[in-house]
Amino acid sequence: MKARVHVTLKPGILDPQGKAIQHALGALGFGAVDKVRQGKVIDLEIAETDPEAARASLREMCEKLLANTVIENYAIEIDAGP
Amino acid sequence: MKARVHVTLKPGILDPQGKAIQHALGALGFGAVDKVRQGKVIDLEIAETDPEAARASLREMCEKLLANTVIENYAIEIDAGP
Repeated sequence: MKARVHVTLKPGILDPQGKAIQHALGALGFGAVDKVRQGKVIDLEIAETDPEAARASLREMCEKLLANTVIENYAIEIDAGP
Repeated sequence: MKARVHVTLKPGILDPQGKAIQHALGALGFGAVDKVRQGKVIDLEIAETDPEAARASLREMCEKLLANTVIENYAIEIDAGP
């Protein structure tokens, strides 16, 4: 089963990487960009057939390793297809 | 208008960061994880009301700055909501 996890900085947490991208886009002439935030996307393949079990497992992975829950949010998407 | 861009390594390009995550998950007891690939997600707010113009602009941003198209793919999602 495939899954995708988004790990993004919580609102209010400074994002210097996002600011750098925004600045660089401005320098390239893309002045219409008001805000940029950069996060991580993690694509996983899990040997698990039950979507609910997969989601529970992914939640634990996020809490333990994938996200720093003090400053980051995570979102789990399960691709229930074959 | 809000948009989200995913930048992921092309299939076949080595992903040491993904491998490191997979290894760390295995060490934490998540042995059912078969494959991990890590990419970037970039959330942008653009001062543009036409979704098609926004998409064209984002495509140009990806080609010029956000993605290294030799080794990375990008996908653009536009949130057409208010």
